[in-house]
Amino acid sequence: MNGRFICPGLAPRVPFPIRYKSISASSALRQGMTEHNDSGIEQIQLLDGCEDSYGGVRVEIKEDMDADVMKADVFASLLRASISSWKQQGKKGVWIKLPIKCSHLVDVIVKENFRYHHAEADYLMLVRWLPETQDTIPANASHRVGVGAFVLNDKREVLVVQEHSGRFQGTGVWKLPTGVVNEGEDICHAVVREVKEETGVDTKFVEVLCFRQSHKSFFTKSDLFFLCVLRPESSAINKQNVEIEAAQWMPIEEYAAQHFVINNKQFNFMAKICLAKADHGYPGFSAWETTTGSGKTTYIYCNNPEIVENFASSM
Amino acid sequence: MNGRFICPGLAPRVPFPIRYKSISASSALRQGMTEHNDSGIEQIQLLDGCEDSYGGVRVEIKEDMDADVMKADVFASLLRASISSWKQQGKKGVWIKLPIKCSHLVDVIVKENFRYHHAEADYLMLVRWLPETQDTIPANASHRVGVGAFVLNDKREVLVVQEHSGRFQGTGVWKLPTGVVNEGEDICHAVVREVKEETGVDTKFVEVLCFRQSHKSFFTKSDLFFLCVLRPESSAINKQNVEIEAAQWMPIEEYAAQHFVINNKQFNFMAKICLAKADHGYPGFSAWETTTGSGKTTYIYCNNPEIVENFASSM
Repeated sequence: MNGRFICPGLAPRVPFPIRYKSISASSALRQGMTEHNDSGIEQIQLLDGCEDSYGGVRVEIKEDMDADVMKADVFASLLRASISSWKQQGKKGVWIKLPIKCSHLVDVIVKENFRYHHAEADYLMLVRWLPETQDTIPANASHRVGVGAFVLNDKREVLVVQEHSGRFQGTGVWKLPTGVVNEGEDICHAVVREVKEETGVDTKFVEVLCFRQSHKSFFTKSDLFFLCVLRPESSAINKQNVEIEAAQWMPIEEYAAQHFVINNKQFNFMAKICLAKADHGYPGFSAWETTTGSGKTTYIYCNNPEIVENFASSM
Repeated sequence: MNGRFICPGLAPRVPFPIRYKSISASSALRQGMTEHNDSGIEQIQLLDGCEDSYGGVRVEIKEDMDADVMKADVFASLLRASISSWKQQGKKGVWIKLPIKCSHLVDVIVKENFRYHHAEADYLMLVRWLPETQDTIPANASHRVGVGAFVLNDKREVLVVQEHSGRFQGTGVWKLPTGVVNEGEDICHAVVREVKEETGVDTKFVEVLCFRQSHKSFFTKSDLFFLCVLRPESSAINKQNVEIEAAQWMPIEEYAAQHFVINNKQFNFMAKICLAKADHGYPGFSAWETTTGSGKTTYIYCNNPEIVENFASSM
C-alpha cells in the first residue's frame, strides 16, 4: 500500500458549510435536480463538499443548519441528489461528518448505503465508496499507545507504585508507573507527565528501552506499549490518590524478584532489560527532534543519533 | 493512569443477548418498572448487560431482536428503565454496542445522554458515565501504525518503488516500500507482507531501525511509522499493478542522494540511518517472541535480546 510514508494522509481541511438554496431539495429532485435561477442558468441543489486529493468528497454537517434541511426527509432528498451528482463526476469516497446533535440523521445516511468509518465523542464519520472499483478507503486508527517508566535513582532504586484497582489490586505487587498516551501527545512527553501525575516526581526522558505490541487488548484494537528510561530530577514522592494506593523507591533487584514479575514471561523479560540498562550494557532508542514538511515538530526514535550524525559527517 | 501495563483492558466477553419479557417495556415503566410473574415475584424489565471488571455494564443489541423491542419508543422506555436500575446498583460506565442495521436507535440512545465512543464499519459503540464522579472511560484507539522496508541486497542495492498516486505521483521519486499494519497484525509480519505484495520479493524481518510518531495525520489521529530492516530471500521483482508504477533495486547511495530525500529532514535522517546500518555501525530493535498471561503470542522489540539473556545468565 502506497503513500503511507510520504503522504500527509487525509488531513482535515477548513470546515465547509452546507450550501443549499431556498427551494427544498425534494423539489429540486422532482425537477431533475435542476432549477433556473434569476439569470436563467441551471443550478443543481446539492450538499457542498470539499474535494480531497484522493478523488473523494468530504461533507461536514453543521448542527446550526437551516431547520428545513435538518428534516430527515428533506435531508434524504438532498443527499440522494448529491450522490447522483458525485457519481456523474466520477467521485470515489464520500465522507460525511455528522455532529452528535444531528444523530437523527444517522439512519437517513445509513439508508443511503453509507457505513460507519469512525466516531469520536461528539461526531460520527460515515463513508461510502461510489465507483464499481475496489474500495480503497483507509482504515480507522487501530492502536492505543501506552507508556511505562523506568526511573532509577543513584542508589539503584526504582520508582514503583501500587494501584487502587485493576488486576493487581490488593496483591501488594509493585509496578512501574504506566499510562496511556493522549491524543496528539508525544511518547517522550506522555511518560514524563504520567510519572509526575502518579508520583509527583520530576523526570527527564532518556530513551525507549523496548516496546511491545499486543492485540485485542481493547475491543478489537491493538496496543503498543513503550517502556522508557527516565532520569529523576527530584526524589520526594507526592502520590496521586485517585488511582494510586502507594508509591516508593525500591531497590531494583527487589522489584525484579517479585513473584509476579518472575512468573510472567513479558514482565520478566522487561525487568531483565531494566537490569541490563542499570548496568549500562543496553542501548535503547533516543528521541531525535525534527520537523515535518509542513513545519510541525515530530520525533524520530532511534539508536544513538550521534552514531548517525557522525556517520553522515564522515561521508 | 494505572492498569495499562498489567491489565488486559476491557476485552470483549461472550456476547450476551437482550433479555426482555413479553410485556412491553413501556408498560413495565408505567407499573413503576415492575410486574408480577406467575409466582408473584416482582421482576423489573431491563436490558440485559454483562458486567465488566471496572464496575460497568455492557449491552449488545442484536439486529434480530424482537420487532417490538426494536421500535424506537419501546426501546427508549426499556433503556430508561435500565439506566434507572443501573444507577441504583451503583454502576459506572454503560456501554451499548449497536449494529449498523439498528441505526434507527442511535438517536434514541443519544437522547438518553450517551455519547459516541467509537465506530467500526458495522457497529457503533455508545457510552454513558452514570455516577457523579469523574468519568474514567478509557479513550478510543488513537494511532494508525505504518511500516517501511529497508531491503538491501549483497550488491548494496536497496529495493525501491514508485507509486501510481499520492504526493509523489509522476515525480520520478523512488521510495522504500511502505504500508499500513492491519488490525491484529504484528509489525514484523506486516512489513514482510507489504514488500511481497508491492514487489513480489520474499524477505525475512531483521529489526526495527527507528520509528517516528506524527500527529493529526488522519483526521485527529496520530501515526506511528516503523522503519524495518528486511533481509531479501529472493531478488526477482514482480510488481503489483494497482498502486505501484515501478519497482527496482537501486544503489543505496543513489537512493539517499535523491533531491526529495535530501530536502526533507525526516527522510534525510532516515536515509542516513539506513546508510549507517548498511555499514554495520547501527543497532536496531529485534523482535523477541513471547507469550502473554493468557497464552497469546506477542512480540517485544528491543536491542539485541542476547545482551539481555547473557546479562541475565551472568547474574
